[in-house]
Formats: sequence, C-alpha cells, structure tokens
Amino acid sequence: MLNYKMVRKGKDRERIMEQVFQYLSENNQEHLEQLKQFLRIPSVSTDSTYKEDVKKAAGFVAEYLKNAGFRHVEVEETNGHPLVFAEWLEAGAEAPTVLFYGHYDVQPAEPLGEWKSEPFDPDIRDGRIYARGASDDKGQVFMHLAVFKAFLQTTGKLPVNVKVCIEGEEEIGSANLYDLLQKEKEKYEADFAVISDSGMVANDQPTILYGLKGFTGLEFTVKGPDNDLHSGMYGGAIRNPAMAMAHILTSMKNEDEVVLVEGFYDGVEELTEDERDLMQKAPGEDFTVSTGAKETVSEKGYTAKEHTMARPTLEINGLYSGYQGEGTKTIIPATATAKLTCRLVPGQDPAKVQDLLAEHIERKLPKGVTVSIKREPLSAKAYRVDPNHPLIRKAAESFSETFGKEAVYVRMGGSIPVVEWLDSIYHIPVVLLGFGTPEDRLHSPNESFPLDHFEKGMQTIANYWNKVKKID
Amino acid sequence: MLNYKMVRKGKDRERIMEQVFQYLSENNQEHLEQLKQFLRIPSVSTDSTYKEDVKKAAGFVAEYLKNAGFRHVEVEETNGHPLVFAEWLEAGAEAPTVLFYGHYDVQPAEPLGEWKSEPFDPDIRDGRIYARGASDDKGQVFMHLAVFKAFLQTTGKLPVNVKVCIEGEEEIGSANLYDLLQKEKEKYEADFAVISDSGMVANDQPTILYGLKGFTGLEFTVKGPDNDLHSGMYGGAIRNPAMAMAHILTSMKNEDEVVLVEGFYDGVEELTEDERDLMQKAPGEDFTVSTGAKETVSEKGYTAKEHTMARPTLEINGLYSGYQGEGTKTIIPATATAKLTCRLVPGQDPAKVQDLLAEHIERKLPKGVTVSIKREPLSAKAYRVDPNHPLIRKAAESFSETFGKEAVYVRMGGSIPVVEWLDSIYHIPVVLLGFGTPEDRLHSPNESFPLDHFEKGMQTIANYWNKVKKID
Repeated sequence: MLNYKMVRKGKDRERIMEQVFQYLSENNQEHLEQLKQFLRIPSVSTDSTYKEDVKKAAGFVAEYLKNAGFRHVEVEETNGHPLVFAEWLEAGAEAPTVLFYGHYDVQPAEPLGEWKSEPFDPDIRDGRIYARGASDDKGQVFMHLAVFKAFLQTTGKLPVNVKVCIEGEEEIGSANLYDLLQKEKEKYEADFAVISDSGMVANDQPTILYGLKGFTGLEFTVKGPDNDLHSGMYGGAIRNPAMAMAHILTSMKNEDEVVLVEGFYDGVEELTEDERDLMQKAPGEDFTVSTGAKETVSEKGYTAKEHTMARPTLEINGLYSGYQGEGTKTIIPATATAKLTCRLVPGQDPAKVQDLLAEHIERKLPKGVTVSIKREPLSAKAYRVDPNHPLIRKAAESFSETFGKEAVYVRMGGSIPVVEWLDSIYHIPVVLLGFGTPEDRLHSPNESFPLDHFEKGMQTIANYWNKVKKID
Repeated sequence: MLNYKMVRKGKDRERIMEQVFQYLSENNQEHLEQLKQFLRIPSVSTDSTYKEDVKKAAGFVAEYLKNAGFRHVEVEETNGHPLVFAEWLEAGAEAPTVLFYGHYDVQPAEPLGEWKSEPFDPDIRDGRIYARGASDDKGQVFMHLAVFKAFLQTTGKLPVNVKVCIEGEEEIGSANLYDLLQKEKEKYEADFAVISDSGMVANDQPTILYGLKGFTGLEFTVKGPDNDLHSGMYGGAIRNPAMAMAHILTSMKNEDEVVLVEGFYDGVEELTEDERDLMQKAPGEDFTVSTGAKETVSEKGYTAKEHTMARPTLEINGLYSGYQGEGTKTIIPATATAKLTCRLVPGQDPAKVQDLLAEHIERKLPKGVTVSIKREPLSAKAYRVDPNHPLIRKAAESFSETFGKEAVYVRMGGSIPVVEWLDSIYHIPVVLLGFGTPEDRLHSPNESFPLDHFEKGMQTIANYWNKVKKID
C-alpha cells in the first residue's frame, strides 16, 4: 500500500481536477472580491431593521448559483427570511446525491466600538479578511459556491448530484427550515450532507469534526416582594431573591464542575478509551492563552479537552437583579433572573433535560419567594458519526492531500441544530468540513477568516467531490 | 401616681402652651401652604443639574428661621451643598441646649412615570400631602421650624436653648457635615440632639425609636476570561464567573438567614429578654401584606421583627453578569458583579466587618477566576440609647399626651449616619422623634405624609420642648 496514495493521487489529479484547480487559482483574486461583496450585505437575521439586507444576501447567493450554472435555483419565501434552494442532478444514477447546507445570515456586530475596522466593510490585513460573517458562515459558504462554479465552468458538470440549501435564519434557530424539512422531505433528501460552518483546531491543521453537542436551556426569575425594598426596614424579614437565586444556582453545579441536577447524566454515552486516545492526538488549545482565564478547570475525572468535546455542560449565560448602576443602593431587589443553557452529548434528550432543570429549580426554591420559568424553545440533540465511515475517511484524505498534514479527529462543544435534524429526519451522515480557526472570533467583534484557508479550502472541497463521486 | 398624669398635664398646659397650641391651630392652613412652597423646590442633592434648586431650598430654610425670630442664621457654604445653621441661646443656663438636625435635600424622583401627581407639585388627597420630600425630610423639618416660630412669635422665647443644623447632603452621605462637626466641634455642641427623619410603626401609633443599625458594604467582580466566550467551544474548560460568584455568595449566608462570614457576629450585643418583651409590644408589620412577599423569613432563633430591628444583616443589593437581553445568548460571561451591604448592630465595627467580608470573598474564590473588590466608602456604626433615659421618657410622654396612646419602643433596621457621628463625637443622647408612617413610601414614587401627623406632630414637638426645659 506504500504507493497507494501516490498512485491514487495521480489518478485523482485527472485532467478534470487540474482544470478545476487551475480555474480556482486564476480566479482567486476575483473570488476574494466577490466574497467582499457578499460580506458587505449586513444580513443580520435577529434584527428586523435588516430585513431587506437579509433578502439582498439571499439574492446574492441565488444569482451566484445561477451564474455558476445551476439551472434550478429558487429563493423560497418563508414566514421569516428566505431560503435559497438549488439543484444540479445530472451526475448520473451511480453518483451519490449530496445536500450542501449553509447559511447567509450573520450575528449582530455589536458591540460596535470594539471593531478595529467596520464590520460590514471587509478589510484585509495580516493574511485574514475581517468582517462579520467572514468565517460564520459567508466565507465558507462562498468557497463552496466558487467550487461548484469552477467545476461547471470548466468541465460543464459536477462529480456528484448536488442539492444546495442556504438559509437565512441559522443565527436565530432555523425555525422555518425545520418546517420545510418536515413538509418537503423529498425535496431536500440526499445520501449525505456536507456543512462548512465549523473550524479546525488550529491554523493549518486539518480537522475532522465527527460530533457536536446538543443544546437546551431556560431562564428563571425568582420573585420576592412586589417592589425593591429598603434593606434597612425589611432586611431580616424578607428572603432576598438574589440570594435565593444564588442558592438555586449553586445547587445545580459544584466547584468540581459536576452538574448536580438529578438525572442530568442519565443515558450519557461514556467516552471510550479509543475515543480518549483519538482526542488526545488532537492538539490541545491552551485555554489560558486563548481566553485570558487564569487557569482551566474541568469536570472531575476528565481533562478540559475531554470536557469541552464530549461531556455535557451547564452554564450561566447571564444574570441580573436589583441595582446595577454606579455606587450603592441599599435595597432588597424584588426579583432576580438567571439564564442557563446546557450543552448535551449523545444519549441525552433535550426536552427531558429541560424538564429536569425546571423540576430541580422548583424543588430547590427556598421558602419566602416564588419562581417563574421561561423555557428556551430552541433545542438540539447531540450528533456523532462513526469516524471510520468512508465519507469521513475521504474527507480526511482530501484535507491531508491539500494541507499536507494528517487530519485530527475531534468532537465539538458547540451545537448545530440543523445537523441533528438531518440526522433524525433523513438518517444520513453529515460531514462537517470546517475551515475556520480558533482566531476567527465568531460571534465577537473583529471576526475574520484566514486567506490561506480560503484558498486551500476550495482545493480541499474540490478534491472531496471528486473522491466521493463513487462511494465504496 | 394615679393622677400624676392629669396633674402634670394641667401644669404642662400652662398659658404658654395654650398660646403655642392656639397659634399652631390658627396657622395650620398657612403652614401647609408654606410647606408646599418648600416642597416645590426640587432640592435633589445627588444630581448636579439641581444645584441651584438645592441652594434655593437652603435659602427657604434660612429665611424661615430669620422670620421666626432666630437672630443668628447662617447659610454656610461647603465643598458641596450649603448647610443652614441658626442658634437661639437665650433660654438661660438652667435650660439644656438642644441641637435640632434635619435635611432639606431630597431623593431623586425617578422613575417619574410612576407618580400619580408631579413629584414637585405637592398634591393633597386622601388626608395626605404627596410630593418628593413630604416625609423625608421636609415635612418633618418644617414642623420643627413652625414650632420654633410658634414659640417665638407668641411668647418671645423658646423653652430650651436651640442650635439648628439643617444640611443639604443627607441623601448623598453628608460628607461635608462630617467635616464640619469635626472641625467646628464647639459650634454644634449641645446637651442632646433631636432628629425627625424617621417614622411610626403605624399611623397614629406613637413610636420611640431608640436604636438604629449601622452600615457597611462593598462590591466585588469575579473575572474569568478576557471576553465573553462561546459556551459550546469553551464550556467545560473555563470556570464560569457567574457560577463562581454564586458560590461565593452562598458561602456568605445560608438558607436559615444566618451570615456565615467568619467573625461577622463577634461582639454583637445580644438582645436581652427585657428588650424582646419591649419589641413584642410594638405592633408587628405583616410583611407579606406590606411587601407582597409570599412569606417572611428570619434568622434562625429570632422572629422577623427582632431580626429587622436588632440583628445584623447581609443583603445582595444588585448583581449582574453576561447577557441580560431578550432570549438566549450562549456565552460564558467574562465577569460577574455583586453589590452587598450589611446592616450592623451595636458591638460591630463597620471597618472591621468590611475587612471580614473582603477576606471571606478572597478566601472562597474558586480556582480559575480572579476577583476585584470595591469597598463602599460610606459606613456607619449602630446607635442605641437607653429607652429609660429621661429625655426618651419625656418624648414618649409628649407623644402619648398628643396622640392619646402609649408609645411603643422599637429599634430600626435603617441607618442614619449623622446619629452615629453625634454619638461618637459628642457622646450625647440623640432623640429620634419620628412622625412618618409605613405608607409614606420614602425613596419611592408617590411619597406622601399624613396631614394629621403634620398637625399632631407639631403639638408633640411643642409639648416636648416644654417638658425638657428642665432635665431631671
């Protein structure tokens, strides 16, 4: 098998691939300019003042696909933002059908004061392109659009049958996509799906992402008196809602980072030794360096890496009570609110975990206060695919051939709900082909994407379509 | 002793007193109109936009005292708002000298939208006068000014030697008064002090307030990573500052309302059985009715009443961390902040307690986060005078003669720093002659003061000066 790779490589580097790579190379500057156009559209899905811009971004994607050579392109209206659907199904019956999913909407840019360049005026510096959406997800979506175009413009065809689904609501929960997938099941049906909305563990380090965490959450408000009270007159007679909330919170997780909510870990698929070895091979992020935290912590019995990748978590995302201004105000606050979310792993059911959280809160509620719970309607199950699946192996090969390094295998702490839906509705593998890096600063000011990943990513994608045209 | 009260009453109702009571009765409407003028001046000390109005209110007080018959009246400039000082020292060497202290500044009126009438346009309805400052403290200060005038205008003299000190910074900590008391000790020196800036336990229930709590506080901020983090990518590796803060907070007070900070209760003067009996006689406030809280709580071993009056407390006044807007944001917050204040009882030293709080927080800080502490510069020791002191007994008598009811004896959970300063600088009794009611809504929208207390209060005060002209 020693020359297997070189021989395969030779066969892979057929005339077709050479044409495609040449096209990509010649058009790299052009592609960057087109990406900039895409990035200039402030397609902020969560904010209704940008509704028209969101539409505009959908139009950009549709137009690009049409110009690329997709004959069937629709901008599908929904109850929210439009969804762009396109298909090219002329690769033949032997070739598989792939659903490429992405999103053209972006996070809000706030806080604006912390951006070094304008969030919607792409700036290239230090080998990166800076803009909101550069990494999540426009940079990566555009790479796929350009590769489709490269194939169609040079060879007149794609190696695989392709359905393209690019929505505008991923940042706000993809509610309408979910409905469409349910109602129009056959339209989106495919043999497998590919998504590029994640990242590599480090710059230039091919990464196979074979698992995602699930997600559930809620908000609870503890209420004491009807109004804020003078703490001198009433301190000693009234349960302080902020302190009651603190007691509830500390009953949910201890200082060993173990979640104490009864039943929380039931059904959790344990990490096998094989997986622990696989994870260990992936370079660890020095979290103290990347985040500025004094030191890392992790669940008792697990490393920080294992905990972020494959153990469930419970986090406070926000809390507020009483007086928050400058100086002192001697009150007993009327209410106290905490927002919690959990990241889940295979074996956990989001609805069940949400129930457990709510029950726990009600059970731990101290005397003298009441509680109201607002459940987060969005949720997702965890996702995990066999790292040895042929589609996964070919992705690893595509990566290593382009980047010149073996891929590492990881599971991610984040959630991508659409992955779980595709898994549960179609029971197909979802290949997470991510080209981002830890420095991209998703969801934060000064989001960026590395230019060399932009180039190499397109080569990797092109290589991948060629490899999977025949599934072993 | 059966007829003692009636005989004394007869002697008390000397011609002088009849004259004074008649004057008060005839001028009641006039007094109300003058009070309204006083209330119309928005003397909000904390807000510099009202600086000129604050001056104007000082001028009102000074003018009134001059017209009343005080020959020595000064508006003393300070580094902040002016202080009005006046003295009338012609009662003779046998008569004691009293320092009457009050304040002409008021709390801000915000939130404005919740006032039923304009905060600085006094409105009379339901037997009350509604305006910011009606109870705290202009209504009560004015009563004293009117009584001084009543004596001087009818009899040409006051029963006691009087020093008047009415400042404009009580709501913001009286910093300049403190300096003046230190620097000009003799100027303000007296045999005892009288303050009317507190309330009765219920409408029409004479109340002897013989103790106040002290006060100390701080704010602490727990810091984790440099920025808010994506909770999927970093959950499991980074200590959540909000949860760390919750762990610190719950280590400070348990669900039995006992403060757990080491050394907190050291030196606390215990409640004697006599005092517990005295307190029990005071009508209890039904805290669930007055505040809307579901039920009351109290420190293990003490009733809610005892706890509010005479046991130290630790309260969270505010806290905030991370995302506080609508819906969900899946972050690990970078920081979490809590504001704490303690009400102290005799035996506790505010600076020492503040140290204990800070040390405790640092000791309980979990691994993986840092903390910064901001100490509240304002503090006050508790105050307690012997309920059997002659000056206190005479206050009780003055009350019961006017209101026709025995006075109840209480200690208050609130703090009045100037009381503690007078105690520690001059070592004199401070008589808290309060005419407010629980419905006055100090520091809140729709502050008001009952008109019958306005009338009866002036009678009580006049009666009191007459009684204390000779101290047994």
